[in-house]
Amino acid sequence: MADMTAFEEWMQSIQATMEETLSNLLPPSSRVPERLHDAMRYATLDGGKRVRPMLVFASGALFNAPPSALARAGAAVEMIHAYSLVHDDLPCMDNDVLRRGKPTVHIQYDEATALLAGDALQSQAFAVLSRQDIAPERTIEMLQILGDAAGSPGMCGGQAIDLASVGHQLSLEQLEQMHGLKTGALLEASIFLGCLCGRFPSADEAHALKAYANAIGLAFQVVDDILDATADSETLGKTAGKDAADNKPTYVSILGLDKSRALAEKLRLDAHQSLDMFDEKASCLRQLADLIVQRDK
Amino acid sequence: MADMTAFEEWMQSIQATMEETLSNLLPPSSRVPERLHDAMRYATLDGGKRVRPMLVFASGALFNAPPSALARAGAAVEMIHAYSLVHDDLPCMDNDVLRRGKPTVHIQYDEATALLAGDALQSQAFAVLSRQDIAPERTIEMLQILGDAAGSPGMCGGQAIDLASVGHQLSLEQLEQMHGLKTGALLEASIFLGCLCGRFPSADEAHALKAYANAIGLAFQVVDDILDATADSETLGKTAGKDAADNKPTYVSILGLDKSRALAEKLRLDAHQSLDMFDEKASCLRQLADLIVQRDK
Repeated sequence: MADMTAFEEWMQSIQATMEETLSNLLPPSSRVPERLHDAMRYATLDGGKRVRPMLVFASGALFNAPPSALARAGAAVEMIHAYSLVHDDLPCMDNDVLRRGKPTVHIQYDEATALLAGDALQSQAFAVLSRQDIAPERTIEMLQILGDAAGSPGMCGGQAIDLASVGHQLSLEQLEQMHGLKTGALLEASIFLGCLCGRFPSADEAHALKAYANAIGLAFQVVDDILDATADSETLGKTAGKDAADNKPTYVSILGLDKSRALAEKLRLDAHQSLDMFDEKASCLRQLADLIVQRDK
Repeated sequence: MADMTAFEEWMQSIQATMEETLSNLLPPSSRVPERLHDAMRYATLDGGKRVRPMLVFASGALFNAPPSALARAGAAVEMIHAYSLVHDDLPCMDNDVLRRGKPTVHIQYDEATALLAGDALQSQAFAVLSRQDIAPERTIEMLQILGDAAGSPGMCGGQAIDLASVGHQLSLEQLEQMHGLKTGALLEASIFLGCLCGRFPSADEAHALKAYANAIGLAFQVVDDILDATADSETLGKTAGKDAADNKPTYVSILGLDKSRALAEKLRLDAHQSLDMFDEKASCLRQLADLIVQRDK
């Protein structure tokens, strides 16, 4: 532990906070229907890097947001993320058996339970967020943001474009649009939820946060594609090389590996630049941009 | 049209209002991703009795709620209902090919699109409800109610209990619990959403509405079971006799047909009695109880 940086300690504390918060906000496995609740917990707890809650907390730090509100907002976002993974892994979607190094939910339980657990996690996310103990106007704004980011103007829309793209050549622009919805929308929502836990942002602040979100959202996907092409399944905790096998367009398939790496680095610098107006309170956001680009899984 | 009662005219006007409201609140089929948006509209528009929005409006009438707020709340509830039907019909659940007289969504489109359309409809329901133009405190209460009613404390929980019950003998009490969650929770939510569009209910009013909701929720399911056992698929617009074929416990299988019919009638009278404290403003709620019990599809 002696050689941990302050940022690493911060990340560990967020992960611990999120594990505890999610565990408290999810129904216990002992409550009827037990199998559904067990599957919801299996899908959400004890796994994941918690990148989205980290964005909530890092953004909240800029706006002096209370930790309890950030933990609740982070839990809501993470429930949406967890539900999306459960449904993505289903046979009619990516048909994947491994996630975070464990059997996927429909393998561990069954398809119907996986479907329902994902559905119930989505409802729970909104139920949890609607119980924020902050000004009602900001809670409502958060619910609007999460609803849009999760639905067809965001994540579900990106998934649908992704589905339609299998076996087709996409332009770089189309690929960006798809990932902007599929991954970027929820990352951006996380950043704005963190902010709103503190106060409404000014127009300039909102503009800066949006630029930051765009940069890290794209960087996140470029790096995912690089890792899918270069890392092994054991390191990733999920099936590697799947995009190529599924003939899905990726940054690596369009740009090649070297140019993809250069793009990720450029986006990292863009993310830093977008935060120029903020002082050292933005240091966690800056370090998260570095982490997203420099991670190895 | 000459022989329509005032109640029939009221129902038709709600159906027309809901069709228009839902059409406006759902993304157009021309918007990318077109196939997803088309499937969301297919699942929601031009079909269904709109019982839940009728409950929203009938309850709203008691509390002088503005029609625009009721239409929006009704649309949110109907989107949750529509999404649940899309997912229920999937091969891993009920594996049904016919709904409201039309091919189910996964037959008309494909399984992945049906999964995503259901997911996106759920998000959209919360996005729509979070944009209510009423006091923020009441909007937030509505979001809490809808989140709980849709999730594992409500509809999804009931579905999970239903899944676990296939091939098992349930007691009447267990059957009531299952349907109370699976169907009753969203019907009750509809009633409270209608109320909250006007104002917060008093404790006595909330108690009366809850008793009414319990009675019609159960009646709804008892009558569904009676119709499943006695009507043909053409009349129902969905596959009849499916519960018996799937060896699912029903009121008819536990009580028999005569006692099921007597129970439905008793619940209809209970529903009326629960509304005793209200004046003629509750007449639509009273007539909806009659309709739920006396319908033939």
